[in-house]
Amino acid sequence: MHPELIDTLAIKNKSKIIFLIMDGLGGLPKPGGHETELETARTPHLDALAKKSVCGLLDPVGYGITPGSGPAHFSLFGYDPVKNNIGRGILEGAGIDFPMTDRDLLVRINFATVDKNGLVVDRRAGRIDNETNRRVCRKLQDHVRLDKGVEVMFESVREHRALLVLRGDGLREEIAETDPQKTNMLPISPRALIPAAEPTAALFSEIVDQARKVLFDEARANMILLRGYARYRRYPSIEERFGLNALAIASYPMYRGIARLLGMDIAMPTDSIRAEVDSLRDNYTKYDFFFMHVKPTDSRGEDGNFEAKVKVIEEVDTLIPLVTGLKPDVLVVTGDHSTPAVMASHSWHPVPVLLAAETCRPDRVERFGERDCSQGGLGRIPMVYLMGLALAHAKRLEKFGA
Amino acid sequence: MHPELIDTLAIKNKSKIIFLIMDGLGGLPKPGGHETELETARTPHLDALAKKSVCGLLDPVGYGITPGSGPAHFSLFGYDPVKNNIGRGILEGAGIDFPMTDRDLLVRINFATVDKNGLVVDRRAGRIDNETNRRVCRKLQDHVRLDKGVEVMFESVREHRALLVLRGDGLREEIAETDPQKTNMLPISPRALIPAAEPTAALFSEIVDQARKVLFDEARANMILLRGYARYRRYPSIEERFGLNALAIASYPMYRGIARLLGMDIAMPTDSIRAEVDSLRDNYTKYDFFFMHVKPTDSRGEDGNFEAKVKVIEEVDTLIPLVTGLKPDVLVVTGDHSTPAVMASHSWHPVPVLLAAETCRPDRVERFGERDCSQGGLGRIPMVYLMGLALAHAKRLEKFGA
Repeated sequence: MHPELIDTLAIKNKSKIIFLIMDGLGGLPKPGGHETELETARTPHLDALAKKSVCGLLDPVGYGITPGSGPAHFSLFGYDPVKNNIGRGILEGAGIDFPMTDRDLLVRINFATVDKNGLVVDRRAGRIDNETNRRVCRKLQDHVRLDKGVEVMFESVREHRALLVLRGDGLREEIAETDPQKTNMLPISPRALIPAAEPTAALFSEIVDQARKVLFDEARANMILLRGYARYRRYPSIEERFGLNALAIASYPMYRGIARLLGMDIAMPTDSIRAEVDSLRDNYTKYDFFFMHVKPTDSRGEDGNFEAKVKVIEEVDTLIPLVTGLKPDVLVVTGDHSTPAVMASHSWHPVPVLLAAETCRPDRVERFGERDCSQGGLGRIPMVYLMGLALAHAKRLEKFGA
Repeated sequence: MHPELIDTLAIKNKSKIIFLIMDGLGGLPKPGGHETELETARTPHLDALAKKSVCGLLDPVGYGITPGSGPAHFSLFGYDPVKNNIGRGILEGAGIDFPMTDRDLLVRINFATVDKNGLVVDRRAGRIDNETNRRVCRKLQDHVRLDKGVEVMFESVREHRALLVLRGDGLREEIAETDPQKTNMLPISPRALIPAAEPTAALFSEIVDQARKVLFDEARANMILLRGYARYRRYPSIEERFGLNALAIASYPMYRGIARLLGMDIAMPTDSIRAEVDSLRDNYTKYDFFFMHVKPTDSRGEDGNFEAKVKVIEEVDTLIPLVTGLKPDVLVVTGDHSTPAVMASHSWHPVPVLLAAETCRPDRVERFGERDCSQGGLGRIPMVYLMGLALAHAKRLEKFGA
């Protein structure tokens, strides 16, 4: 099928679309059990919604592919996650709202601790606090210099994480990552992976050498490790592609950053799921597309805490009437990927989805859960097509062909 | 997957394949209801057939994409509907059996009424009768002239619709449509959408100017509006691609035209579904592929008449024994797209399908309906793959690879 066909058919109207995304929603049963986190959760409101919706399963990137948060969210918003594979450096830059330009190469820094022989003894520098991070970044900014018309910027993120930006002409991203992935190893050299990247690799060698000297007297953050080299590229916005005036309600920097890359407005961060729903309600008249991101489903999954993930889903369920009370034309409830607590990580399993709209053809799903959704009217489809379905049900797509 | 792979594997044999297409078959329940038109209809014969068939749901063009009749039928016959997107002008030309050549640019004309200031006051010229249409076309043919080696032909279609053909070298189709879409507006100028189309655009400006003068004294059809500019292109025929000697049994011009474009023979038009079945039986020994097109399911859907659409489906059901009595090797019953009566228009919802053949792997579907088909053995698949499945079940595809 043709993921970009919808761009040519999109029209504007007054309809409202809500994407309620529970990060890492999909799950697995505990060993010997039969019910996933979602199936275990008591979700009367989601179940009632599922009855009126068309349900299915979404594959974020492909069968068996475990997606990172970047590709998973690109797919949710109708952007081919492979063709638009987004580098970690850009995700970090977007997360701190760094003003990127077409000449920028963005790199994620992890501060690390090396011993006197240069061996990495802590790959996260003991998770230094944010204040130390900011101080160390300033120090690097003040002392690291390149003399080849390339500007160097060190931007603090949080804990052991920072962003390195090179701004110049002809920079290449095909450079080896320097994190050895294990302790008691030397950092890897930032060598060129293709010949054309050799001039850029030389700049990174220079930066790493200078940084080692500048950070020599630091107790913990005395070395930098580089990963996720990414040349900035501009993505066509949700507005340009689909004519949607979009608001992201998300509190974690990375998701705010992705939304910003795709041209969404970003609501003020909040400190609870309930506060996100309030933000949705407060902003409801001003936008026509709402991306509401619930992070703790993923966090508790990553923690390996099955019961805590169940509780987060139940909390979201209690808030559903506040969302449906807005009477959106299209309400989608799904995740960006699966994070089964028993795996304590992202996984490749497809994600349950429900799409509620007046034009839904009923299926026989009566509960919102993985097995029920596998019998739903949407079938099992690539996640990248979800946006087209949402636009269709919002009557925002014209007929194709005569 | 690879929609054209089947071309390389197709072989001939003595098998017979019937595609019984109920136009706009897929539907939706009435508000508050649970059953679609097809699910409401009493269809004992189709249900018995579904029990012996493999069932599923077909997406004509893509998830969320509402197809026009052209793309939907291309997809049914195994032609990628996006790569082969067919212009309205060609569809009109095919519908009246206009003998198209490689040098032709075909355009749909709508006759319109303009007031003394040139503002469009009726975009369909009060739906003039066919006799007036023919008279006005003759008048244009007699008086409109181009002096640049380009031939101009005006062909009557019906009511307010006609076909304009330019025959010449280097004609381009990238021209703005001139229908302002609203009344009390001036017609849009047929300007070039790309620089290379400027010479062709100048021809259309000349034609529009001359037509305005020629039609000056007409009461209603005193202006022409142009849309659906399409350069003729030849499509590989069903015979060339799949070795099928095909007959189309369809009474509406557009469907006869599409079948003709794909190289099918066309049966005499009939005035009832029963007469189409008789035509199928009369011609059964002479062909190996039969496209039998039932229009009223779509027409009643477009009318918004749920009960009338149900009745058409029930009428088709009573005729099924006459079709199965022919003992075709493969019998496919489906639609080209959905036309839910509650929407009174084409829609993007997938279309139920049954495929009956001796080599069907049974599924658990016991009734022919949308929800039942969603549980069928075919799953939910792109419509463009239906032809390959039909050929396979007719033993007309060789093994791929050693």
